[in-house]
Amino acid sequence: MAREVTAFSNSTVKLLRSLRDKKARRAEGLFLAEGLRILTEARDSGRLPEIVAFSAEGAKHPLAAGIISAVEAAGGDAIETTPAILSKMSGKDNPQMLLGAYRQQGTSLDAIDRSTAPLWIAAQALRDPGNIGTILRTGDAVGAGGLILIDDCADPYSVEAVRASMGAIFTQQVATARWPEFIAWLRGGDGQLVGTSLKATQDYLEAEYRPPCFLLIGNEQQGLPADYEGECDLLVKIAMEGRADSLNAAMAAAVMAFAIRASWR
Amino acid sequence: MAREVTAFSNSTVKLLRSLRDKKARRAEGLFLAEGLRILTEARDSGRLPEIVAFSAEGAKHPLAAGIISAVEAAGGDAIETTPAILSKMSGKDNPQMLLGAYRQQGTSLDAIDRSTAPLWIAAQALRDPGNIGTILRTGDAVGAGGLILIDDCADPYSVEAVRASMGAIFTQQVATARWPEFIAWLRGGDGQLVGTSLKATQDYLEAEYRPPCFLLIGNEQQGLPADYEGECDLLVKIAMEGRADSLNAAMAAAVMAFAIRASWR
Repeated sequence: MAREVTAFSNSTVKLLRSLRDKKARRAEGLFLAEGLRILTEARDSGRLPEIVAFSAEGAKHPLAAGIISAVEAAGGDAIETTPAILSKMSGKDNPQMLLGAYRQQGTSLDAIDRSTAPLWIAAQALRDPGNIGTILRTGDAVGAGGLILIDDCADPYSVEAVRASMGAIFTQQVATARWPEFIAWLRGGDGQLVGTSLKATQDYLEAEYRPPCFLLIGNEQQGLPADYEGECDLLVKIAMEGRADSLNAAMAAAVMAFAIRASWR
Repeated sequence: MAREVTAFSNSTVKLLRSLRDKKARRAEGLFLAEGLRILTEARDSGRLPEIVAFSAEGAKHPLAAGIISAVEAAGGDAIETTPAILSKMSGKDNPQMLLGAYRQQGTSLDAIDRSTAPLWIAAQALRDPGNIGTILRTGDAVGAGGLILIDDCADPYSVEAVRASMGAIFTQQVATARWPEFIAWLRGGDGQLVGTSLKATQDYLEAEYRPPCFLLIGNEQQGLPADYEGECDLLVKIAMEGRADSLNAAMAAAVMAFAIRASWR
């Protein structure tokens, strides 16, 4: 049976609230996802939250009720609470009426089997959690296997990244690594490393991509470091017509990923 | 000579601060842009702010100094102020040391000459100002002529949209219209209206696009209304491989816009 919790001082409420903070996420090994759509996505991918919190209103939807009883059946914690408390947990004025705390998956490169997908996305020093979530979502849509976060990136388990991923945090593998570790792992097997650079001479539409292809996206401001570019097997350019700035990192990832997939058809 | 202003109660400070609010932007016909990079972009596109505010630090860069003296030479207002006040204006803890208030351009469809670009992007009921800015930036990169905002969209002149556009607000034409008005204008000339829909049967890579091509992007949650889809000359599908949600609206715009351009090469 779900517990009813209405005190901000309740320890489970405090735990869920704390997950908006990176340190707490790391210490607990948990992260927050919000909303029926994303929790259903998670369940369809075989993932249940360890803790689910909901309002009386939120529990009314049959899919929500199904998730809540599945959490209880699995020995998890289900708490019915108030919209005001849900709002505190999510940090939004109009919170979702259902949210869950999920166990973070391991993020070791060794857990990645590169043969399971033709395309993988790697992002280097990406600072914007929204970009990370958006790239996860793009990866899911294009059929990539997952996202490898290189050097100091924003946390893929932040509320903002999870929100922008629209559930793809549950369908895409996520690994983190420093650059030397990534390169050692990459070169330990088959794999084409593809970077984009405004300095490249080869057009992205004319390059020959071969799976498993690792698409490398650089930092929002600086792009890729020169020596990282030097390590790429293929360095391509998306010709820009505009007078303003280059493409946003998440846009460049989407344009490249879909162009790579298109080249294989 | 630039005036020095250090009081939060100064009327110019108040005016600039007010521009974070849509009503004030509309009443004044002005909008805020921040940072040397974007203000330089604007200048390169022939646009100067009517008011420029900067810190002593911000004025040191030769490009900033050039913009400040150009504003003064053009009879505009240049104020030197404190980082604390710049922070209040931009709503950010770490504000840019240079910001400008620019005159909004007219947003009538009649101002658009469709023969000047092969591709135009139209967005319907897009609610996220970040998406609007990102689509402007994509439009600039891909060589689109501008963005037509249909029905109730977020304000392209909001601080968030201008920021995400990375200067493309100055290079892309922007028009706003209700749907019937847009369709009447569109059908008054040459133009192919292209929508994307998960219900479409034609693959986006196999369709034949012809300029002037109008790429129509739907609302983030609902996509395009069925009768709007019915009006499209071409309805295409981006096949999704994933288990999670479809592409984000701004991603779909980027993938489509670059695929359309690629088809013309």
